[in-house]
Amino acid sequence: MNPGQTAGRPGRKSIAAAALLATLISGQAWAAKREFEMNIEDTRITLVEKQQFHTFAFAGQVPGPLFHVDEGDDMEVKVNNMTALPHTIHWHGMLQRGTWKMDGVPDVTQEGIKPGDSFTYKFKAEPSGTMWYHCHVNVNEHVALRGMWGPFIVKPKAPTALEKRVTKDFILMLSDWDSKWANKPGFGGLPGDKFDYFTINGRAYPDTEPLRITKGDVVRIRLIGAGDLVHSIHIHGHAFKIAFKDGFPLPQPITGDTVLVGPGERYDLIFEADNPGRWMVHDHVDSHTMNGDRPHGGLMTVIEYTEVKSDDAFYPWNKRVPKPNFYYQDSLKKGPGIYTNETFQGQAVQ
Amino acid sequence: MNPGQTAGRPGRKSIAAAALLATLISGQAWAAKREFEMNIEDTRITLVEKQQFHTFAFAGQVPGPLFHVDEGDDMEVKVNNMTALPHTIHWHGMLQRGTWKMDGVPDVTQEGIKPGDSFTYKFKAEPSGTMWYHCHVNVNEHVALRGMWGPFIVKPKAPTALEKRVTKDFILMLSDWDSKWANKPGFGGLPGDKFDYFTINGRAYPDTEPLRITKGDVVRIRLIGAGDLVHSIHIHGHAFKIAFKDGFPLPQPITGDTVLVGPGERYDLIFEADNPGRWMVHDHVDSHTMNGDRPHGGLMTVIEYTEVKSDDAFYPWNKRVPKPNFYYQDSLKKGPGIYTNETFQGQAVQ
Amino acid sequence: MNPGQTAGRPGRKSIAAAALLATLISGQAWAAKREFEMNIEDTRITLVEKQQFHTFAFAGQVPGPLFHVDEGDDMEVKVNNMTALPHTIHWHGMLQRGTWKMDGVPDVTQEGIKPGDSFTYKFKAEPSGTMWYHCHVNVNEHVALRGMWGPFIVKPKAPTALEKRVTKDFILMLSDWDSKWANKPGFGGLPGDKFDYFTINGRAYPDTEPLRITKGDVVRIRLIGAGDLVHSIHIHGHAFKIAFKDGFPLPQPITGDTVLVGPGERYDLIFEADNPGRWMVHDHVDSHTMNGDRPHGGLMTVIEYTEVKSDDAFYPWNKRVPKPNFYYQDSLKKGPGIYTNETFQGQAVQ
Repeated sequence: MNPGQTAGRPGRKSIAAAALLATLISGQAWAAKREFEMNIEDTRITLVEKQQFHTFAFAGQVPGPLFHVDEGDDMEVKVNNMTALPHTIHWHGMLQRGTWKMDGVPDVTQEGIKPGDSFTYKFKAEPSGTMWYHCHVNVNEHVALRGMWGPFIVKPKAPTALEKRVTKDFILMLSDWDSKWANKPGFGGLPGDKFDYFTINGRAYPDTEPLRITKGDVVRIRLIGAGDLVHSIHIHGHAFKIAFKDGFPLPQPITGDTVLVGPGERYDLIFEADNPGRWMVHDHVDSHTMNGDRPHGGLMTVIEYTEVKSDDAFYPWNKRVPKPNFYYQDSLKKGPGIYTNETFQGQAVQ
Repeated sequence: MNPGQTAGRPGRKSIAAAALLATLISGQAWAAKREFEMNIEDTRITLVEKQQFHTFAFAGQVPGPLFHVDEGDDMEVKVNNMTALPHTIHWHGMLQRGTWKMDGVPDVTQEGIKPGDSFTYKFKAEPSGTMWYHCHVNVNEHVALRGMWGPFIVKPKAPTALEKRVTKDFILMLSDWDSKWANKPGFGGLPGDKFDYFTINGRAYPDTEPLRITKGDVVRIRLIGAGDLVHSIHIHGHAFKIAFKDGFPLPQPITGDTVLVGPGERYDLIFEADNPGRWMVHDHVDSHTMNGDRPHGGLMTVIEYTEVKSDDAFYPWNKRVPKPNFYYQDSLKKGPGIYTNETFQGQAVQ
Repeated sequence: MNPGQTAGRPGRKSIAAAALLATLISGQAWAAKREFEMNIEDTRITLVEKQQFHTFAFAGQVPGPLFHVDEGDDMEVKVNNMTALPHTIHWHGMLQRGTWKMDGVPDVTQEGIKPGDSFTYKFKAEPSGTMWYHCHVNVNEHVALRGMWGPFIVKPKAPTALEKRVTKDFILMLSDWDSKWANKPGFGGLPGDKFDYFTINGRAYPDTEPLRITKGDVVRIRLIGAGDLVHSIHIHGHAFKIAFKDGFPLPQPITGDTVLVGPGERYDLIFEADNPGRWMVHDHVDSHTMNGDRPHGGLMTVIEYTEVKSDDAFYPWNKRVPKPNFYYQDSLKKGPGIYTNETFQGQAVQ
């Protein structure tokens, strides 16, 4: 979205806000002020063509808008609760030094934001790295089943040598859904519930998008465990370096082809694009590659090298026009800002 | 308890034993002899006010007594089985060099201790670190559902520079419970069972206790995976160093804000208390923050800085008088010894 | 099997192939050519005496034959699909540099191999380490429930100092089974299914085999997560070094007594055999030590030191004649080759 706009579903009164960039002096260094206004809205999203889920969507989209800011920036995010249930936002990974009342935990740091009410979160963006945000009210439902999460990337003042080399940067938020509660907002997320849909950025294969890269690229995959289950992510055709955990660089990167991602954890994988082909990226928990009771779906996508034609008759994506920015890769290139994304917009629930 | 006493429920015949400290020369160094006698008793504990569980409790408490001993100490623990089912004790992490018959595995290193029988475990406390003990008979029931576990901390002869700086030391044992089998001792713990209660040191939020710290503290959180499920523990407001795994120092600590703890694993997290506030500590597996079908409970607690008042009207713990020693922090300060804890005592089952 | 033979169930027409060793010059170095022909066959295996599972077994065995080859070897594996459903083979961990069409993913790198059809996989064995292979069609059923996996070990050209010291080398493939779908090939592996059998190399305790070692050995345990669940493997009486992940040496090995193994992951543990005794090796997920609803089974085995007699009356394995090569330890000693194993042969399904 453009600066000066508010994030919400176009055409609704909820749309009215701001991603204004101002600069001000903070200590010795310049820190930008990032202002944003965001509605939480009853929204319906559709997985693999037919399975609908009622969500409480940030700015009407799942995942929520990307916050891509510089380390040390001053955040000011006004949240308007347009739903019928209380919510908060926890900025997962933010240290909130001196601002614990901005940590977004209901009954501990603040009261839940009541339906119709607003709350403005003010805090400094630190530390740097792959962070995220999510509601902290009844997380078993609001996070696990209602899509209340989005990516929050803080650009480091002092990037590592390895990350400086990155040419393609992708964000993959991993989630699990339970169709039993799909259309019962305010309910669900009980112990023993079975999850039957599994998504990357809110979409299940074959509705995910290819990760398009070119030989010579240095690729960064930012995995965010946004759901309720542990995922074992395997990338074909490459060995990657596990370079960052929870935003922090590992003292020495660990090499592998599979990484276990727990709820709340983030792993940044970095690898050289040196092997043109068509390569699966998927959860090796086999039952997470399902769409309901149909196999070969769920938490899967494909790395496509631009050098390789996608025209094999057997390839389901052989005529696909990739949707732009599905992994926020274009937004990340644009530099700091707060980015909504048409691709993730759901349908208003009246 | 005082030296010379036995650990069991006060007022029962089972109470009769000893935590005598003797010293004797072992090789070149002095090693203390730690003697203890402990009953295993049918005991009822109550979670979140109303959910009762029948346990086979060590010394009538869940978790069991803390063993806090020096590396190299000679342990001698007499166990009296007062229940109607066989048991053993496995000292998880102890190397048992030259004493494999003391490893406590039924049918492999010993016969199960029959009802009414006793067995004395004799072994050297090595290596150092965060260890634990648990029954090894029918672990799917006795460990997963009957509270048969306790902490075992071995003080190192040569502590690391980082751990020397610790000023507050907390033990958090993580467990899962299934109310379906709560009052059917001898049964339960089947594949596919659903766990519906989730505890820290045998209590579910809001019955857990705050972790009270002060700015300037160096805090150590000893996580012990004592249950059946993987937990993804997130601490708000701080980045921690994962300093030890299974009692051993990592060659280079890894920094993060969330750590995946598998059954049997231990992780020692160390961080600087530099950010006064009220901070959540919880499992990021959302469905583990439930008490049965009620949200906002289970595997959660709060770090409270002493600098911050707890009087917000919305804060459920605003008038709470913390129970002492819930995280064994006071016992750990007292130095080596074997410590029972009134807080963890259950109710005798006749 | 001998070179010149084909891998399949003896006495069936499917038996006809080759593990020929040829050598050819590849760049500056000599690389062997490893040719093999392997059927996929409807096969019945039996767990703990009575629970049968219909599998689609590689060469009629579960796990499949061991591929033990040198780094850089040229692989040529012809696969004949004798079952009624399509299959592929994905060589998990192989980089497939320049050979992405050999990666074995249906609808992405090739069409599924139809019933009655064959496909020949040609690729270079790189990188080195503990790898594995499995079907990639409907993995929720074919991998999770039908035994379509086997070990693939690539000997490094430049072994690490630590692995050079290894004297006993064991492969343990970890899997989970669901008896509900045992005899319904073509079905099963749905979200929410409960797994009720848990195996090491396709056998559940007490049908697993002891790991026989001798004081002075340097022991390598290669754990392969071949199933659908996360396993938390605990070894008694020893601290091990986690030396390799997914075939790659860790920059600095991590010491522990328990390791979390996710689906698809591999961990190579190395330890000194310095503590004669009888020591459990088991999953610390308590419910994974079950055989159906019977406790004390599943994912367990015992390390037996040869110095220690196994004649205790209470020890279930006191009169056991170990089956050779259950952990592929004898095959691994023989050097590069492709090894079938009578022990793992199932029963033909007509």
